Amino acid sequence: MSARAAGMGLSEELSTIVGPEYVVKEEAGLEDYRKDMADYEAMPSVAVLPSTEEEISRILKVAARRKVPVVARGAGTSLTGAVVLEGAIIIDMKRFNRILAVDSVNWHVRVQAGVVLDDLNEALHKDGFFFPPDPASSFICTVGGAIAEGSGGMRCVRYGTMRDWVLALRVVLANGRTSSFGEPLAKNRVGYDLVHLMIGSEGTLGIVTEAYLKILPLPSVPLVRMLVTFDDWPSAGRAIQELRQRRIRANLMEFMDLETILAVNAAFQTDFEEVEATLLVDLEEPLVTPAESIFRDHGARTFTRATNEEEAERFYSVRSHAYLAIKGLASGVQIEDVTIPIDRLAEYLALIKEVGTRLRLRIPTLGHAGDGNVHPAILFDREDPASRAAATTAFEELCRYAIRVGGTVTGEHGVGVQKAALMREQMRAHGGEEALRLMKGIKRMFDPKGVLNPGKYVELA
Amino acid sequence: MSARAAGMGLSEELSTIVGPEYVVKEEAGLEDYRKDMADYEAMPSVAVLPSTEEEISRILKVAARRKVPVVARGAGTSLTGAVVLEGAIIIDMKRFNRILAVDSVNWHVRVQAGVVLDDLNEALHKDGFFFPPDPASSFICTVGGAIAEGSGGMRCVRYGTMRDWVLALRVVLANGRTSSFGEPLAKNRVGYDLVHLMIGSEGTLGIVTEAYLKILPLPSVPLVRMLVTFDDWPSAGRAIQELRQRRIRANLMEFMDLETILAVNAAFQTDFEEVEATLLVDLEEPLVTPAESIFRDHGARTFTRATNEEEAERFYSVRSHAYLAIKGLASGVQIEDVTIPIDRLAEYLALIKEVGTRLRLRIPTLGHAGDGNVHPAILFDREDPASRAAATTAFEELCRYAIRVGGTVTGEHGVGVQKAALMREQMRAHGGEEALRLMKGIKRMFDPKGVLNPGKYVELA
Repeated sequence: MSARAAGMGLSEELSTIVGPEYVVKEEAGLEDYRKDMADYEAMPSVAVLPSTEEEISRILKVAARRKVPVVARGAGTSLTGAVVLEGAIIIDMKRFNRILAVDSVNWHVRVQAGVVLDDLNEALHKDGFFFPPDPASSFICTVGGAIAEGSGGMRCVRYGTMRDWVLALRVVLANGRTSSFGEPLAKNRVGYDLVHLMIGSEGTLGIVTEAYLKILPLPSVPLVRMLVTFDDWPSAGRAIQELRQRRIRANLMEFMDLETILAVNAAFQTDFEEVEATLLVDLEEPLVTPAESIFRDHGARTFTRATNEEEAERFYSVRSHAYLAIKGLASGVQIEDVTIPIDRLAEYLALIKEVGTRLRLRIPTLGHAGDGNVHPAILFDREDPASRAAATTAFEELCRYAIRVGGTVTGEHGVGVQKAALMREQMRAHGGEEALRLMKGIKRMFDPKGVLNPGKYVELA
Repeated sequence: MSARAAGMGLSEELSTIVGPEYVVKEEAGLEDYRKDMADYEAMPSVAVLPSTEEEISRILKVAARRKVPVVARGAGTSLTGAVVLEGAIIIDMKRFNRILAVDSVNWHVRVQAGVVLDDLNEALHKDGFFFPPDPASSFICTVGGAIAEGSGGMRCVRYGTMRDWVLALRVVLANGRTSSFGEPLAKNRVGYDLVHLMIGSEGTLGIVTEAYLKILPLPSVPLVRMLVTFDDWPSAGRAIQELRQRRIRANLMEFMDLETILAVNAAFQTDFEEVEATLLVDLEEPLVTPAESIFRDHGARTFTRATNEEEAERFYSVRSHAYLAIKGLASGVQIEDVTIPIDRLAEYLALIKEVGTRLRLRIPTLGHAGDGNVHPAILFDREDPASRAAATTAFEELCRYAIRVGGTVTGEHGVGVQKAALMREQMRAHGGEEALRLMKGIKRMFDPKGVLNPGKYVELA
């Protein structure tokens, strides 16, 4: 109040909380916060870099009083516009970067929200543990961002997504109060599950400052990594389906189409075989022989086993670097993220090709074959309205296919602003209208003044 | 409205919905619904056995109009008073007993809420799959009850609780409308996670009619089952702690004290070794040797490996039948369910013995050593007020210890009426006051008229 009475501006008032060196108000500095990784953009008013819950609490009180929205930001690797908002206060969580405790008896780790996932895993590996979820951006993305986005990754086929690995949270709420959600225990039945409500809430319900995450011992069974290629997608799709029916559990089951392989080879001067369908597979040693026989039955063209750690890394990199390679192919990329029942994989891949041909778009496609989560990358020319319109048409057509066959328009990237309308379509089509009403009610109850990342996601749906 | 205008009674009106043969109104019939498994009791007004969502929807509308509370009931195996309520309409879910589809490609099963867990597993085994959560009551308890209670069990040390195995739900809400929550897909990021909000909500947010559950291939690695005994608890506790630190992942890690073994031997004419501390352990074959060496280092007295399927079953039964054997020892049993950090196990077991001696109570103790979830069974004489009071004192003292050391008052049994006050104590002590406020808000939003199992759990806390 006194700040306002004194006629203090927003940046000045925030400076009194975190110190002027941790307030970014110049346009040049704010440029870092203007975009997400898919180039959704909106200019914030100011960015702040707090280092304590108390500071976040005070920032939220200022925001509520001044009616300025707040967006918490980790590495900004959202692909849906979830971390950009016109005129907002961006809370950059970079300084919450400490691993507070690794508990090797109870198999959990206590971390601040700004810790980078790969840094966490590096620390855990020393003790023989790991944290399974591995979004493609794990080299920069943060624990808090991955929780807010409910992120997935390649290992999810075996280990599930962020949803399966968070035990407890510290959260600053819209009213500026701080609360613990859940307990750092393998089992806890006290109260409704607010932890899972936060996972995938995209910064709209509270700001996570700290988390207890489950960890696992590094696998003791040796894994075999291999590249398997096919001349066509229907064969690859049928092979994947049969692996599942024969109850063969892969640790990695990624796929890339020819355009993706071409992009990778061109961007990184690699020489991966340029063939219609490539699978990257990790299997426990005893499963390799039965799996190879299934691949062969379905006409696999080549198998290449990684013979050492270095080669295994090289195989992995073709997939993990693919999005970067693809992004270089055009001025615009609309990355899609549907998940469909696995038995629809071949059909869906055929549809992508058909849509691309019909709308004259290049759509390199890759994704997580083992859990039906596919990422077509719809390329377009940002300067050409016709090309942009065609990309939007393709995007919506692919999403609507997923809705029609009982899939979801987003497996791991979330909703943000990109998919709010499609989310509504999906929920209506799948009998979830009341669920959507309840979600909107939850948002209002957690954030009655609309301070936290407002106007997106369930509010926009 | 017309029913009311016609002066129709509650039972009569419900008869028009489900048919008179599916309405129970006589006291003799209602006796089946008067108690839960821990003998919490309250007389309902009427019980109904609907067979469709539409019928449940109509029942809820009648309940709201007449201001009569509703409690959905599976097998009634709650241990906390969650399924009994004075004057309520009990919705017995028995007729929702169909397994609708086993999907061997997408690894999930679609089931109605009244399916018994063991029946589900029997059906899945035929296809080479299983559903991991295995509460001790799995021979009678239902999918819907296990979801409402967020149940655990013995395999949870490896596979987690119900929380980790539900993909999507069909729910009838307090307003009588039906909705789907979630999607039957390995990955789905559309909307807030209402599925997990339902898991462990104890019938207070909606009535689950159908669920998609994840399933897994039966383990392909052979498991070795063994009984390991120790002369004292501190040694057993240290052995368990070291197994964890050495990253040995057990598939089963149960424990029983001497009183439990004595009760089992007496009740079932078995001859298990009568020693202070007994562990029931399942390990993958390659882990047996390193584990045995750790047990030996900590002074294990005997190891007995099961040499065949029958013996393995016999070992398992000592633990699975233990609660029944213990229940026979006294007219009253207060079963406790704290979860504590695993490194507190030996300390907690010592406290139980000390409390028992001091208050002159027998407290046979068993539980899930591998995840710190302990079940002291506080025996008392129901007819003796002093004995009942002592049991309550012991119960609260044990819960408060858990709160003090960062544990939870309930790992898997839930809150019901038994632990509402202790739940509040725990949340206050652990910085969760705002979380409790939000939970109460969620309850009001889902059930503004207080129809669904009102006056318990978060409302009572």
